Amino acid sequence: MEVEIKVPLTEEEFERIREILRSRGVFVERKFESDVYFNHPCRDFRKTDEALRVRYDGNSLKMTYKGPKVDSDTKAREEIEVQLYEDVGKILEKLGFRTAGKVEKAREIYHFEDVTVYLDDVHNLGKFLEIEMHSDNVMVAKERIFEVLNLIGLNKDRTTRKSYLELLF
Amino acid sequence: MEVEIKVPLTEEEFERIREILRSRGVFVERKFESDVYFNHPCRDFRKTDEALRVRYDGNSLKMTYKGPKVDSDTKAREEIEVQLYEDVGKILEKLGFRTAGKVEKAREIYHFEDVTVYLDDVHNLGKFLEIEMHSDNVMVAKERIFEVLNLIGLNKDRTTRKSYLELLF
Repeated sequence: MEVEIKVPLTEEEFERIREILRSRGVFVERKFESDVYFNHPCRDFRKTDEALRVRYDGNSLKMTYKGPKVDSDTKAREEIEVQLYEDVGKILEKLGFRTAGKVEKAREIYHFEDVTVYLDDVHNLGKFLEIEMHSDNVMVAKERIFEVLNLIGLNKDRTTRKSYLELLF
Repeated sequence: MEVEIKVPLTEEEFERIREILRSRGVFVERKFESDVYFNHPCRDFRKTDEALRVRYDGNSLKMTYKGPKVDSDTKAREEIEVQLYEDVGKILEKLGFRTAGKVEKAREIYHFEDVTVYLDDVHNLGKFLEIEMHSDNVMVAKERIFEVLNLIGLNKDRTTRKSYLELLF
């Protein structure tokens, strides 16, 4: 299970939180991620709350399936990810999957306390914070994520459960 | 385009053709291929004459889409193949694809004249010859393939357009 929250940030918050993460966390890397999302040939992913994504980060290609969200406060959901040598987009198109949209962002990754924190600058959308944990226990992970959010100085009611795709299109 | 014919062989023919290929062709390799075929969540691949396959040959994983056959004498069809680091089966299942069947075979690969020849020993099915060319010109490739078949000493009417999956299930 991937347990995750997302918070839209102002420029000032983005810089302030970056300072916190740089001084009290561990900077992992900065990369540019280009994500293509697909619609299912016979399921409306907006209704079933699923997602199929192919991500290219300049280095590697990954295909990711995201199941329906299982929690009302977070974006907790099943996630299955496989690494690819080559883009499967052409095969997906032949199978009737249609491109739903493209999300491009510059992402900074930090380890902070026991969670992973992303600072995202999403093309045409703005700046965001994501806090993520992988756990089989959604309740425990969620509690911890909200503690970290509080530590960073942000209120729980600032979170959105919407994906970048939903926010963009 | 993959232009291909398939011929079921008796044990005697299999051995006789192997001799021809060993002496007048180039032996490339022998491998064990394990193929899993999937049904589409909302298309009947038997009706649309398509196929989606994940192949593991002991070394590498490949996902292949095969379009409808475009020729009445051969198995000529569009083929799109991508190499994978990891098995996409779990994601395909989540997307509603169901396993249609598994085909396992020992395959000997030969280069013979300007075509590729496979000698297949298919589990629970028997021995087969396949002759294959990749070409954008189906008519030319097809003519050449039938010439090679004749050279090997087999008649055109021995071919079948059925897949191993169709022959098995």
